[in-house]
Amino acid sequence: MKIAVIGTGNVGSVLGRRWADAGHEITFGTRDSSAERLQALLAGTGARATTAAEAAAASDVVVLATPWPATRAVVEQFGDLSGKILVDCTNPLRPDLSLDDAARPSGGEVVANWATGASVVKAFNSTGASNMSNPAFGDSRLTLLICGDDAEAKQVVAGLAGELGFEPVDNGPLSQSRFLEGLAMIWIHQAYVQGWGPDFGFVTVRR
Amino acid sequence: MKIAVIGTGNVGSVLGRRWADAGHEITFGTRDSSAERLQALLAGTGARATTAAEAAAASDVVVLATPWPATRAVVEQFGDLSGKILVDCTNPLRPDLSLDDAARPSGGEVVANWATGASVVKAFNSTGASNMSNPAFGDSRLTLLICGDDAEAKQVVAGLAGELGFEPVDNGPLSQSRFLEGLAMIWIHQAYVQGWGPDFGFVTVRR
Repeated sequence: MKIAVIGTGNVGSVLGRRWADAGHEITFGTRDSSAERLQALLAGTGARATTAAEAAAASDVVVLATPWPATRAVVEQFGDLSGKILVDCTNPLRPDLSLDDAARPSGGEVVANWATGASVVKAFNSTGASNMSNPAFGDSRLTLLICGDDAEAKQVVAGLAGELGFEPVDNGPLSQSRFLEGLAMIWIHQAYVQGWGPDFGFVTVRR
Repeated sequence: MKIAVIGTGNVGSVLGRRWADAGHEITFGTRDSSAERLQALLAGTGARATTAAEAAAASDVVVLATPWPATRAVVEQFGDLSGKILVDCTNPLRPDLSLDDAARPSGGEVVANWATGASVVKAFNSTGASNMSNPAFGDSRLTLLICGDDAEAKQVVAGLAGELGFEPVDNGPLSQSRFLEGLAMIWIHQAYVQGWGPDFGFVTVRR
């Protein structure tokens, strides 16, 4: 699959490298002009890097892993995204890691309003990058909640989550984004305010 | 411990009966005037039933398990709750199980504003009554997130959760309530809209 990964922070670089390892054609979209950092990111992956707009234009799936304050400008650069899946991994965070209430009713729906024509799926927002690097905890696979209004797009994203080792769980329409973003706030609070650090996650159990 | 359980629906009756079994002195607060239902609820428990206000006055811990539309009037009946712990198990739900956005920034904080003098702890809101009946899934114990502004009160509530078989997790101040209520919305959607039913839950795993 042709996947654009927009953003080369912790989340973007883990997702892009792992999907490249799984055989997908990855194009990172980045403003990063440091040749050294880019070289380290791309080394041995077969991935390439270009501008966000070019990466999106060249791909079927666009994975948005930008810091929230940069997100609007990046998405508006994409132009028409008809026929593409936009995976929103962002959370509307302020610099102090609190939730930016201006993103109403949710960051996912705000992103969908900016992303002309795209099928938006909220995913990969509710746990840390190190868990995306390895979602296996002993015999358990971390749950990855996803939501969106396009069932086929969700199936594609669920497949990509499964390739990483997550158990994908479809939590319904894109309007569930506010709760998935709230789950991110629970995780972030536990990791960085309660002091657990990032090496924990949530697993679904059934009877 | 003297515990008032306000509400005799699914959640209240399970919590009250299980804590009674664990040796606590339970007083149910209820408007239910059906002698038959009350008898079935109390049978073999050693618990008693009276009005909500009397139950609260006689107890150190007041567990609020009312339907959201009834909650304000019930809490305002309590009068002064100084020195007591109020455990808010409610979720601000509309009859169609959507979130009532009038409860801002969260039901937990709204309840705290109504509950004069009480130390409010949000807990037992994010999973179903059948999981409260049995939080063990094989070798795993369901996670029960709690939050509140009074550390000692949270320890008491964590102890009560542990007695039921949950793994209690302190997610920080009462302002986290909106995210715990969001987690309830995730669970409810999965159980009743996605059709999983109530026999699942979330477990915390660590490396």
